[in-house]
Formats: sequence, structure tokens, C-alpha cells
Amino acid sequence: MGFDLKTYLERQRVRIEEALDGLLPACGEDAPRVVQAMRYSLMAGGKRLRPILCIASCEAVGGDSETALPIGCAIEMIHTYSLIHDDLPAMDNDTLRRGKPTCHVAFDEATAILAGDALLTHAFSVLAGVGGQGFRDRVPPSPSLPLQAIAIVSQAAGFPGMIEGQMQDMLLEGQPASLEVLERMHRLKTGAMIEASVACGVLSGGGSHADMDRFCSYARHIGLAFQIQDDILNVEGDPNIMGKAAGTDHLHRKTTYPSLIGLDAAKVLAVAHRNEALAALAPYDAKADPLRALADYIVRRNR
Amino acid sequence: MGFDLKTYLERQRVRIEEALDGLLPACGEDAPRVVQAMRYSLMAGGKRLRPILCIASCEAVGGDSETALPIGCAIEMIHTYSLIHDDLPAMDNDTLRRGKPTCHVAFDEATAILAGDALLTHAFSVLAGVGGQGFRDRVPPSPSLPLQAIAIVSQAAGFPGMIEGQMQDMLLEGQPASLEVLERMHRLKTGAMIEASVACGVLSGGGSHADMDRFCSYARHIGLAFQIQDDILNVEGDPNIMGKAAGTDHLHRKTTYPSLIGLDAAKVLAVAHRNEALAALAPYDAKADPLRALADYIVRRNR
Repeated sequence: MGFDLKTYLERQRVRIEEALDGLLPACGEDAPRVVQAMRYSLMAGGKRLRPILCIASCEAVGGDSETALPIGCAIEMIHTYSLIHDDLPAMDNDTLRRGKPTCHVAFDEATAILAGDALLTHAFSVLAGVGGQGFRDRVPPSPSLPLQAIAIVSQAAGFPGMIEGQMQDMLLEGQPASLEVLERMHRLKTGAMIEASVACGVLSGGGSHADMDRFCSYARHIGLAFQIQDDILNVEGDPNIMGKAAGTDHLHRKTTYPSLIGLDAAKVLAVAHRNEALAALAPYDAKADPLRALADYIVRRNR
Repeated sequence: MGFDLKTYLERQRVRIEEALDGLLPACGEDAPRVVQAMRYSLMAGGKRLRPILCIASCEAVGGDSETALPIGCAIEMIHTYSLIHDDLPAMDNDTLRRGKPTCHVAFDEATAILAGDALLTHAFSVLAGVGGQGFRDRVPPSPSLPLQAIAIVSQAAGFPGMIEGQMQDMLLEGQPASLEVLERMHRLKTGAMIEASVACGVLSGGGSHADMDRFCSYARHIGLAFQIQDDILNVEGDPNIMGKAAGTDHLHRKTTYPSLIGLDAAKVLAVAHRNEALAALAPYDAKADPLRALADYIVRRNR
């Protein structure tokens, strides 16, 4: 393709982390404990996949990615809150995330609950343009953009989307599930916010309804490919590279793609979804190359 | 005053609960568990003080309260989420709320965390106009109203407001605190959202900047009066009328107004704040009578 994804991802990651940094209060040791916890989890690294998808989708339809950046940051805050709450003892009870102690281990359970709540709430401040320096004085390209983004993101993150997915994930634990049930759960738990990232990118780039349909199809396929690869890595990934334990799905008797259809078929399925995602982008020029490379990266990644 | 508060409160309560009901999916036994939990806590009664303040403030500045109703409902969802999370074992560990088992007792801890998250998220869907039937096709009186309301509410509910208040409340537990520290905590924990309710009412009623200043002063004073009365009821209230236990502040060694300045001085202080609240409303006609009666009710209530 002649497109250097590694350089692109690194440049966007730096840019996104600078923007995220500017969206929370500066944090010395005398900062409020809940702000320290928000920062601890938000700035703990991670792939920043969702904001990158938002930015890349905006650029792919010919928009200025500066418009998509704050929306991508808000989505990353919501993603981080969902990880903090999912890691709680009452939920998945995980102690390690991105190679660091999870929020409730580094702080305490009450602080982790509140830090998650605060990141979720702050995301909507950011989307409304009051979430920090840097975006406050920016005039959106369309006056309706912030409200449309809030509508998309709140539906994707709420009970019609991500929350119902997390609920189903917990209810399914230790129970046999069909491929159909598994896919529905993933479409909600991770798919909805990945699709929202791409949809907000298209929206902020001024894309058409046809663009929106194609990019959302792209998002649904990479969302499933991403999840299948996650399941594969949980079987054969290197905990040192991933920064989290492997084998936990088997331990918790979770139904996964490898447990349902076997490791080899899961790999074939991930690639099939990658190909469907690429097909949805066929009408677009080189500005969509980052999205193409990302689809490829999602099924090749080792963390 | 010639104003019948009891009838007014009952009429508004019915109206608000009908609106809240329409903002969540209908709920049979086959409804998603998280939606059942959302409904369980949201429809568990309560005074509906915040939406009533929002509606009454809108009317007091000459607006149509139908505009304020969905905003008040969104604020009530956020209030309910904050109660669900505050009641969790890792926070206040309360088992009874409004005379019913708390959400994590009636369901389970994970479901309660998610139901709180979902109510908070759904509030922003409602504010953005995509949160349910009934408000979807309504054109706001000002195109910027929804975004301004989201800005106000997200700041009041987030780490600059309510969440920092809850954090401080927990950090203060079992520690001596000054009147100044106690007041700051309450201004954040309950005051911020009470002020937001009134501010959104003024905004949706098309009030001026001067209206906003006066009504926010009213809100700050009734917020403190409300909290002082809460502390008083925790000492001498009737658990059967309140629907929750009394004496818990003493048990948890919480600093309260009665513990700091004595029960009698606390009652005098509550009335003083009531009077300041009434003074802020002096320029307004009879349309502000519900707000006046509410200020009075707040220091007279027994639950």
C-alpha cells in the first residue's frame, strides 16, 4: 500500500495523548484524588484505537481531523471509564490492565467507581465544548455537530449499546452460547462504540449518508475482527507483550470464538471480516489508506 | 401566600413520573436485566425535587414548563444514578432507600453499577433529544438550549461538582471537619445539581442573565437549607416516615451541622438560608410562588 501505519499510529497517538492531557486539570500530588485516578487510567497508554478511527474516518471523507479530535478524545474517556468499571471486583475482578495495576487496586474501589463516573460525565462536557482548554473557542463546522455526536455516543455507550453488551457478557459467563448470541454480545459490548467512533468521524468530516453507511459497515466488520483477535490472543498471546494475563477466558469458562469454532477457524473468520471491511472502503481514494491499514493491523496485532 | 404546595407538588410529581416512564423502554419480565434495574430505582418514588425545581424555575421566568420537563427528567436520572452508586458496598453500603431494598440488594452489585452507568448515559441521550418517545420531535425554543443544558448538567454532575463532593464526603468520614469544609462538600455534593436544575429551568424559560444570577443564589441557599434539614432529620426524624434509617450519621462518625453547631443552631441556620433564598426571589411575581413554597417546605419536611 505504500502507507506506513506504524508512523501514522505513533503520530496520532502522541497527538491524542496531548489532547487528552489538556482535557483534564493538571495533576500534582495535591490534586483531588478522583482527578488523580481519572488521569491514572486515562493516561495509562493503550492503543487509542477509537480516537484514531474517528480521526482517520474524518480524513477519509475529506474533513479536517482537528474537528474530530475532541470527539475522539471524549470517546476514549468513555472507553476508559468502561474498562475501570469492568475491572471492578463486582464485575471481572481484574488486577492488571495495560501492564499496570487496575484503578481500584492503585486507588480503592470507591475512588475507581467515582473516577469511572467522572470520565463518563466529562466526556459529555468535552462533546458540549466545556471540557477543558483547547476546544472551548473552536466553532464546529456545523452548529448541529456537537449535539449529533452526543446523540450517537450516548446511545452507543448506554443501555441500547455497550452497557447491554457488558451485562450480557456477565450473564453468559460459565454458560454455553451460540455463535449468534456471542456475536450479538460483541456487537453491543465493543462494536457499538467502535461504530460510534467511525460515525462521529464521518459526521465531523462532513460525509454523506452513503459515506456513513459504508463506513459503519467497515466499523462493524473491524469490530468483530478485533474481538475475534482478542479471543485468539487470550489463547496464544504473550502476556508480556499484551500487558495482561492470557488464558483467562478458559479459566472463567467464557464462550469465545476459539472455544466455539476452534483456533484455526477463528483466524479464518477474523480475516474474512477484515476483507469485508476493506470491501466497504473500495470506493475511496488513498485518504482511506489509514483505515485500510488499521483493518489489517487489527487481525495481525499481538497485543 | 394562598398557594397550595401540596396540590402543586402532587400534580408535578405525577406529570414527571409519566414523563420518566416514557423515557425508558417498557418493562415486562423479559426486559433486559439492566433496564429492569434502571426502572426499579428511577420509579421508586422520591420527592422529584430537582425536576420540580427545573419546571418551577422555568415557569417563574415566564416560560413554558413543557420545555423544562425533559431536562428535569434527565437531571432526575442523574440524581438516581448517584444514589445507586452511593449506596454500593464500596461506598456508603446502604441497604434501604425510599423504603425499598437498594438496587444492589434487589439485583446484584454488578447490575447496580451498570444500571447507574446506564442512567447517567441515558440522561445525555434525553438532553440530546434521542432518549425516548415524546420529546423526539419537539423543537427546542432555542437551538442552543440542548447543548447549553448538557454543558451545565455535565459540569455540575462531574468532577468539578457532584463527584468531587461525594469523594470529599467519603474522605471526611470519621474525621473532624470545619463548618467551611462541610459547607464546601455539600455545595458540591448536592448543591451543584440543585443549582443546575434551577439554571436549566431559567435557561429553558428564556430568562435573562439577571434572572440566572438571582435564581442561582436561590438555589445555593435552598441547597444548603436542604442539606442542613437532612442532617437534622438524621438526628430526630422518624425512620418510618423517611423510608430510611435515622442515626446513621452518628454511627458513621460523620461531621454534620448538628454535630458541629448543635441541633438548635442548625435549625436557625436552615431557616436563615430559607430567608436568603426568598430574598433572592423578591423581584418576582406570583409565578415564583411555587419556588417560595418549596424553600419553605425544604426546612419543614419530615422526610
